[in-house]
Order: sequence, then structure tokens, then C-alpha cells
Amino acid sequence: MTEIDKKIISNIRGLSIDMINKANSGHPGIALGAAPILYTLFAKVLKISRENPKWISRDRFILSAGHGSSLLYSLLFYLDYLKLDDLKNFRSLNSKTPGHPEIETLGVEMSTGPLGQGIASSVGFAIAEKYLSNYFNDDVINYKTYCLVGDGDLEEGVALEAMSIAGNLALNNLIVLYDSNEVTLDGSLYNSSIDNIELKVKSMNWNYIFVKDGENILDIENAIKEAKRSDKPVLIEIRTVIGRYSLLQGTHKVHGAPLTEEDIEQLKEKLDLRNQEFSVSKETIDEFQKMVDDRNDYVYENWLKKKDILDDKLKIELDDFINKKYDLNFEGLSGEDEAVRVANSKVLNLIAKENPFIIGGSADLRESTKASITDSGYFNKDNYKNRNIAYGIREHAMGAISNGLALSGLIPFASTFLSFSDYLKPSIRLSALMNQFVIYIFTHDSITVGEDGPTHQPVEQLVSLRSIPNLDVYRPNDINEVIGAYKAMFKRRKASCLVASRNKTKLKNETQIKLVEKGGYILKETKDVDFVIISCGEELDLAVDIFDDLSSKGYNLRLVSMPSLNIFKEQSEEYQKSVLTDKEKFVIEFSSSMSWTSITDEKHIFSVNSFGKSGKVKDILEYFNLTHDTIEKEILKMLNER
Amino acid sequence: MTEIDKKIISNIRGLSIDMINKANSGHPGIALGAAPILYTLFAKVLKISRENPKWISRDRFILSAGHGSSLLYSLLFYLDYLKLDDLKNFRSLNSKTPGHPEIETLGVEMSTGPLGQGIASSVGFAIAEKYLSNYFNDDVINYKTYCLVGDGDLEEGVALEAMSIAGNLALNNLIVLYDSNEVTLDGSLYNSSIDNIELKVKSMNWNYIFVKDGENILDIENAIKEAKRSDKPVLIEIRTVIGRYSLLQGTHKVHGAPLTEEDIEQLKEKLDLRNQEFSVSKETIDEFQKMVDDRNDYVYENWLKKKDILDDKLKIELDDFINKKYDLNFEGLSGEDEAVRVANSKVLNLIAKENPFIIGGSADLRESTKASITDSGYFNKDNYKNRNIAYGIREHAMGAISNGLALSGLIPFASTFLSFSDYLKPSIRLSALMNQFVIYIFTHDSITVGEDGPTHQPVEQLVSLRSIPNLDVYRPNDINEVIGAYKAMFKRRKASCLVASRNKTKLKNETQIKLVEKGGYILKETKDVDFVIISCGEELDLAVDIFDDLSSKGYNLRLVSMPSLNIFKEQSEEYQKSVLTDKEKFVIEFSSSMSWTSITDEKHIFSVNSFGKSGKVKDILEYFNLTHDTIEKEILKMLNER
Repeated sequence: MTEIDKKIISNIRGLSIDMINKANSGHPGIALGAAPILYTLFAKVLKISRENPKWISRDRFILSAGHGSSLLYSLLFYLDYLKLDDLKNFRSLNSKTPGHPEIETLGVEMSTGPLGQGIASSVGFAIAEKYLSNYFNDDVINYKTYCLVGDGDLEEGVALEAMSIAGNLALNNLIVLYDSNEVTLDGSLYNSSIDNIELKVKSMNWNYIFVKDGENILDIENAIKEAKRSDKPVLIEIRTVIGRYSLLQGTHKVHGAPLTEEDIEQLKEKLDLRNQEFSVSKETIDEFQKMVDDRNDYVYENWLKKKDILDDKLKIELDDFINKKYDLNFEGLSGEDEAVRVANSKVLNLIAKENPFIIGGSADLRESTKASITDSGYFNKDNYKNRNIAYGIREHAMGAISNGLALSGLIPFASTFLSFSDYLKPSIRLSALMNQFVIYIFTHDSITVGEDGPTHQPVEQLVSLRSIPNLDVYRPNDINEVIGAYKAMFKRRKASCLVASRNKTKLKNETQIKLVEKGGYILKETKDVDFVIISCGEELDLAVDIFDDLSSKGYNLRLVSMPSLNIFKEQSEEYQKSVLTDKEKFVIEFSSSMSWTSITDEKHIFSVNSFGKSGKVKDILEYFNLTHDTIEKEILKMLNER
Repeated sequence: MTEIDKKIISNIRGLSIDMINKANSGHPGIALGAAPILYTLFAKVLKISRENPKWISRDRFILSAGHGSSLLYSLLFYLDYLKLDDLKNFRSLNSKTPGHPEIETLGVEMSTGPLGQGIASSVGFAIAEKYLSNYFNDDVINYKTYCLVGDGDLEEGVALEAMSIAGNLALNNLIVLYDSNEVTLDGSLYNSSIDNIELKVKSMNWNYIFVKDGENILDIENAIKEAKRSDKPVLIEIRTVIGRYSLLQGTHKVHGAPLTEEDIEQLKEKLDLRNQEFSVSKETIDEFQKMVDDRNDYVYENWLKKKDILDDKLKIELDDFINKKYDLNFEGLSGEDEAVRVANSKVLNLIAKENPFIIGGSADLRESTKASITDSGYFNKDNYKNRNIAYGIREHAMGAISNGLALSGLIPFASTFLSFSDYLKPSIRLSALMNQFVIYIFTHDSITVGEDGPTHQPVEQLVSLRSIPNLDVYRPNDINEVIGAYKAMFKRRKASCLVASRNKTKLKNETQIKLVEKGGYILKETKDVDFVIISCGEELDLAVDIFDDLSSKGYNLRLVSMPSLNIFKEQSEEYQKSVLTDKEKFVIEFSSSMSWTSITDEKHIFSVNSFGKSGKVKDILEYFNLTHDTIEKEILKMLNER
């Protein structure tokens, strides 16, 4: 370690502590303990272009242990991605330096904080690189994904699921740096885990390297060099001391609370730093940036040249990829009476044919959800051009990996039964929070799943999804509405859930491709409108039957199809009113009524607010009083009672 | 294998196939493949008393691969826990033989179906046995927990989290039988996983035994015998052939669809069975029951004797435990201005002092959530009497293990930040579905978490929880309401979430211990009531300030505290109306408005429907226009617009 290495590391530690101290909130433990690791990575290893920070072929770094944000920000400051004022505003409202890293900050590849998500999404980054470098070539797409994890990340199930996938896919472009400090928030790691990490990662077909002294940056650098030559993903366990140089070092007390003034004073003395807040020597900045630039500038120049000699077709495709340009063309698509999951499969496959950057998987339910790219095989180490990812029965990793794919510019789809959307909720939330275009496809979407019973019958899942901020939820009825949903999705490019029925629905003349982007629209109405029925998904078929029956009996009513409640609520009040009217409203959706109480009162909602039942669909619907007859009778009763 | 063994196994296979065929729905693959495993376990190993099926010291068996229900039901029929008619009603509405096992059926220890949950909860069963046998003695509590898993279970993160905990705790009373058939629903297992399972479980401090032929019941029995002598949990990998004897054996096509008539015919021929539905020879039943009874009857008799010589104190306690008798006494408890999580800690500890069967943990956040039993240490292999479980950063396993604890008669608490309740949602859902008394304690319950930012700030989680059927959600404001919540919880004994603030609230004179069980009640009101404000949790303090301000300005209003919305909605319409009136209603809760649209319209709800922000609490509330001034102004504006 040169004098300047030492100096920069000390400065980074000092800055991190100053940030936490000024904010009076933050996590000094990891910032002090892992500083040499991140310094080594950023100063000596990472392939980045400071002039072109969004360079498509840059190495990615994900801070899975998101509570180490102050450390990351210190390094981003050294890269000149952040200013000193940003560091001073650590954890302040609307700063570029929030409590946990948020993707809006330059140099932050992913929002992290909920443990396990970062490493699991890193697997998605690595899959994306393999796919893209095989689609183009490894002259233009060629990078590593690095990820810093703590003990907590490695305890999370989502991390373990994703690591198993990474090993199966032989993702040797993935290098995980494990800040192994033997301490978690509540105390010794060994209270909760005595796993043999070496054996564990090897069992999942990873390579493992141990660095016994986390202060030895040469060992760290050499370990990374070795990892870069691996034929498998690599976990480098680096033994560190949490809160290094604090009076509380090595204890859990230094994990998540600011240091005392006294502690800061002695720490800065030990580190040979001036005891002045946010003081940082210009020399260290210059030297740091020189190291980064000297290593990278010619690499970037070289890359430009290589990009230039791409053949024309690929050049255009690369630009389209970078600019996220996609073609949507639904010609030749014809629906019929079919399950919505089947209609979805047709539409997805048609779009995928034209758009090579759509890839995804179905968590071992492709036979049931029908969400797969039928003319492609499984993405695996023998064929990284294939577009179906065999996630196995690992829904949570599927969600997290999808985030990594989306953050790498791909359009991922991820599918399972709606009931099991619960398993990946934390990742769906992050898709929405990071505003990433992920297409979640959840099928078998109500109690009409039938015989598989309450564990497989969603009840509250639609509310749960609809309540996630910034998430679009579509529940189309037939292929027209499925097409409409995809049109809206590609226009809005937000995290999206397409919720599809297991059972057949009728292909309708009245469903409107174009109006799905309004969320809801008038499907059918009589001349005058005395009351309104609103429905969506599979239940719309029943609503149509009831509409037809009531209108033939002389009642005046309207039927509204509402494939996306959240998008409908974004429309102008005028539009909403024009669709819903101020007349009496009934809703038919065989799911929790909580989705709809903003539209009408609970008595007017034909819903399911208890767990489902195992049985034949017909028997279940009779049990819940949700047949054509019972609903119609109930509607008429309420109309009569007015 | 004797002739009778063979005959019974064939009969079990035949029955399972008949059930699936009659229901025209089900999973023949595992039923055929794993029949010898479950036969061996039930006929040769399980310690059960058919006369006393709920015997407290019986061995537990959990079918983690819940889709193997037909196989389990066949065995329960052989035990005489089910009748032939039950089998004939497989997957019919309100039968004892639903599509996936449900706990209401005698002999089903846990509802399963969502993969990974069964094995993870099995760890809870095993923890409970260790705790109870150490609390009483291993003469009266002494049993093994067996669990049948498939490939899917072992891919799920929740299983891996729980297995790591089991290894750490050296739960040698847990034996997992792995139906290793190398096939998942979508095809070969090796598409999605090439993990070395032996290495993987050993890395987590399990023992591993391999049985190469799943038809060899002697090998299976010997492996289980060996496992029973282990000092660690054991996974026995038993290589089977999915759909054994079907024309489709060894392929994924036999996983989840009924066999053809032709296939059934040849299968029955191969198995030397009469080709007649549900035919089963009485001889096999007699022989099976004789095996079970001969092995167990004297053991049960012995147990009765041992129970008889327990000392008086323990005898009473054992009866109390079996009868779920608990004492609640809140004397000596005093509140103050304090965070609700702190008040909760006081109440929890007071109750725990009197009630030794409360145990739990906080997924590495006990320092933050304050949910721990402060006068006890960590439950571990050196001290199975301790009552704090170091779950580590494994929220999902915590949830699933809590279910296992509750199913074993204990009262588990499980705690993390509200934002991370997402991680264990699938297990919370099962607590509610199985109607198990688990106390989930979710703290840091709104955007007022502050600096940690949007990943740590719950927004939609309260809706998500409140929408789960059969789940009680409490969000108390001070220690009075916390006590009230515990009183209600112990009275109702349902799956419960106690949601607690990170920040201080004021101790109030007006909060009512007794009225929490009504869900909501009048906290304060002026003489006449012109409008109503409803609030709960931390925000109730703000609502009180606004109430005081508005009433001092001469407005006529009422303030309602609503610690449990779902319980309030169970009350008589009369009571609800007496609290809410038909006047204009405002709600203050810094969380998604979807919880409250059944009470008032969205404009009247002061809520957060976007993701939170990192910053100081004051700044965040200003950003969201959720300060005393802005809310009061908005209320007055709406009142003026009437």
C-alpha cells in the first residue's frame, strides 16, 4: 500500500464519518470497515469512464449493503460524480445523498437498502451482460458486475435463491465482495449463523476466495484479479473489522448510530486526518482520479473504435437498445375464446419476436402461466442467446433478477401465479420505486382457480399490488385488452403487472384496445343509464351476461370495463365522471373489496373477503353467492330499495 | 420388503390415482414416486397414537410438498383418520380432502401448498419441541418432526433461511425426507439447479444421508433410524422416479395432470391391483394399523405413566399449556411519553414473565424494534430454555418458523420493520389461513422513519396487511392501547399484527384499554358534533392537537381513535354508526389511503400514496403537506366548501 492509497482511504473514512455526524444518522460500521475494499475496487479495478458515466459497457457496482451509503457517496465524490455539498446534505430531503442509495444519483446503479435485493439483482445484471455480449459481441458489451454484501445479505433467502441461479448459469462475470465482519446489528453473527460460507457457495457452483486482512488492499486487488479469471461466479470473503478505528470497533454498537465527538476525534487522530469536518486534500482527489482515468481512458477510446466497426444492422440495434426504441406490431394476431393467460402468451410472443431485448421466465410455472418465449430455449451457459430463464421455484429471485435485467436495459417478464406474487413483493416494490419497466405476469387470478384451494387462490393480492405506489396493474379480459395493456405498458414504461385468468373468457367485439390506456371505459350501455356495473378480468364475462339479461328485461344500465384501476384514477376528473356517472355503481371482482371502496360502498361490491375454498369452480361460486343469479338478484334488490 | 409392505404401497398408489382421476385434478407424480417413503414413515417409524391423534408428544409430519395431498390422504385413510368417502370427495367443496392439505383435517399438522413454507415451519416445530422438552422434561415432551420436501421446496429462499437456522440451533429432532426425483413442473430439475445438495446442507450444519433407491423401504427405514441418532438436523435425499409406474414416469408431464384411462389400467396391472376405483383390501388396512399400533400403544401407555409422575407445578403447567390457558396481568405497568415500540416492549415483557410459552425474535432488529424478552438469552444448542430466537436477517423464515411454533402450542412473537413485513407476507398469510395465534410486531410504521428513506418507509404495507382475510391488525397509539391490543389478541387468539411507531407519542388519559377490542372508539368530542376526525397510531397525537385547536376555535367535532380497522368493521352497524356518525369524516394516517376509502372519500384522507423520502421527519412532513397547519387548513377549507 502506497502512502497515497493510505491517505485516500483515510480521507474516505473521514468523509463518511463526517457525513453521518452531520446528519446525526447513519451507519459508521460498514463505512469504516469496508473502506479499503471499495477504495480498491474503485481506484484499481472498476472499468468506468468518468466522462461517460452511463457508458453501456462500464463495470457495474451494486452496494447490496445499502446502509453503507456514506461510503459509496464518498467514493462517488472522489469520482466527481458528487460534490462536497452533496456529502454535507447526506440524508437531507431531496439531496443526492439519501439515507440509502437511490438510483437517481449518478453512479448508483440500483436503489438498495432492503437486504438481499442488491446481490440478487446483481445476478440479473450479470445475466444481462451475458445475453447482450452474445447478442452483439464482447467487443462492445463486456463488463463485470461487482457487488458488496454484508452478513445480512447472505442470510436473506432471496440472495441464496439468486446465487444458486448464478452458479447454474456459470456467470463468471459476477464478483461478490463479502464484507465479512462477523457482526450484525444485534450482535455477533454467530448468534444467528454458523454456516460455512465457503462450502455453501461452492455447493452452488461458485468459486470462493478468502482475504484474511481487509486492510490489505494488495490482497484484495489480487483476489479480484483472480476472480476475473474464474469460470464461475466468485464470492470473495474479506475479513474486516466493523467500525475500524472507532473506539467501538468490532462491536455491534458501531453498526448503526453516529460516533461520539470523542470517538471522532481519536479516530481522526489515528487516521492522521485534520479534525475539521469535510476537509479533504486536493492531492488525494487528483491522484485518485488519475488512477481511474489512466486505467480507463484508453479502454473507452478503444471501445468507441470497436463499436464503430460493428456491422450496420447491429449498430442500429445497439443504438435502439441504448435509446430503448421498440417496435410494437400486433398485425396477424387473432383472439378467440381463450384463457387470458393464453392470450397473453400470444401477445408476448409476437412482441418478443420483433424485440430481441425481451427475456424472462416463469419460476417453474411456464406450463401453467404460459409465459415463455416459445421459439427460444433456456438461457444457460451453453447458450447465452436463449431468452427463457429457468428460475426454478424461486419467485423472489425472479423478481430481483428482473430488476437487474431492467436496470441493464432489457425488458424482463416474470411470471407466476397471482397468489405467489406475495413471494416477490419486496422486489416488485423496488421495481416501482426505481421506476423500472418490468412486466410481471400473474395468472390464476381469483378463487376460480378451483380445486387447488385457498393457498393457490388469490384474494388480497390485487389490493396489495394496486396499493404499491408507481406500479401499473392491468387485469384485461380478452386479447383486445391484453394488446391494449401492452400498448400502454410500452408507452408508460413503468413497473407493470399483467394479471391474467386461468379460465377461458369470451373474445368480445366491445373490448377496446385503445381505451385500456385510459384504465377504464364504457363497454356497453342502454339508451338511458340508471345504474352502472364495473368489472374486469375474467368476471367481465359474467358482468356482460348480467348486463345483457338486465337490459333485455328493460333496465337502463351501463357496463364499464376497468382493466386498470390505477391508470383510470390518473385520468381527468371529467373523464372519470363521464365513465362512472353519478349514478348507483356496482362492482364485480372476485377478490378483496378494498380495491374498490373508493368507487362504491362495500355492499355494492361483489367480492371475496375471506380465504377461498378447494372445489369445482361452480361449487365455489355458489358457496360464495357469486353466481349470475345471486348477483343479479342482489343488484335488483338494492335497486328496489332505493 | 415383505409381501404385505408391497401390497399396501401398491394400494396407496392406486388410491391416490383414483382420487386424482375422480377429481379430474391433482398431482400423480409425487403420489406415485414418494409412496414408499411415506409408507415407511407412517407404517414403520412415526410415533403416533391412533386413539389419541392429538397426543402432545406425537411425532409430527409435515407435507411440505403440499401438492402430494392425495398421497397423504391415502395414508390418513390407512390410519382411519379419513374414510373412503373422504377420498372419493378429493378436491370437492367442504371435503376433508381439499386440493392441498388443510389443517382442519385430522392428521394434517399444517396447511401446505406454497412451496418452502412446510420445511421452514418444520424448523419451528423442532424448536418448539426443544423448548418444551427442556421446559418440562423429555419424558413428557419428546418427539421428532419429519417433513417431506420436493425439489421445489429446496429451491425456495424461505427453506434455505430456515435450514440455516436449524443447523445453527443443532435441531437433531428434525428429519427432512427429500423426494429427489430430478424433475420439476417445467422439466428437468437441472434446468434450474445444479446445486450439490449434500454440500449445501452440510455447509449449514446438517447431516446428509443418501438413499439411492426410493423403492427400497428397508434402506429408507435404516436411513431414518440413522437420522434419529444424529446430533444435527438431517436431510435424507431419497432418489425416486416421479410418477413411478405411469407411462409418463420420469417426466414432468406426470407432475400435475390426471393420468389417462389407459395409463391407469396398465399401472394397476403392473401394481397387481384390481382395476376398480377405490378398491382396497381390508387385509392391508388391518396389517397397516397393526404395525402402527403394535409399535405405539405401549409407548403411549408409558407416556401416560411418565406424565403422572411429573411434579405438581409442572403438571398444572402442562395442562395449562395443552389447554392454552394464559394469565394476563398488567398491574404495575406504567406508561409515559414514549415510542409505541417501547410501550410494546414493556407490555410484551410483562406478559412473557407470567407466561413461559411466549417465545420469539426480531430478525436482527431487536435493538430497533425492542421486541425481545429482556430477561432471557438466545435460544441455542447450549440453552434450549432461552426464549429469544436469533433469526438473523431472515424475515421470511421468522414468519414460517413462527407458524411452526404456534402449531406446536407456543405463542410466538416475530418482529421487524413494517416496511419489511413484505418479506414474510406468504407466511403471515398462512398464519391467518390456519388461524394461528402469532403476534407479529412491526415497528417503524410510517414515513416518519425519516432519514432511512423510501426503502425503509412503509406506505402500502398497512393496506396489504389489513386486506389479508382473518388477520387482526392493531395500530395503537400509547401504552393504554397497546395493553388493549394484547387483551384483544389473547381473547381472540387470531393471527395478529401489532404495528408500532418508531417515534415518541404522548401518554393519554383519553385512550381506552377496554375499547381497543371494539376496534375504534370516541376519544374526544365537543358538545355537538359537526364532523369527525379518525386517526390511529403515531398520527393520533397530531389529530389530538388538531382537535384541541379546532375545538378551542369553536368548531364542533369528534376525534375517533381507530387502533384496529378490521375489528371495528366486525362490530354491529349500530356501534359503528354511534362512533362514526353520519357527519363529514376526515382520516389522518400517513400511509396509503386505500385502507380508509370505505370510511370516507379520498379527498378527506390525509395519507401518503407515493413512496416516502429520505430526510428529517419535519422536512418530510412538510414535503408531503402533512403538518398540523396544512392539514387543519385543508379540513377548514373542505368544511367551508360544504
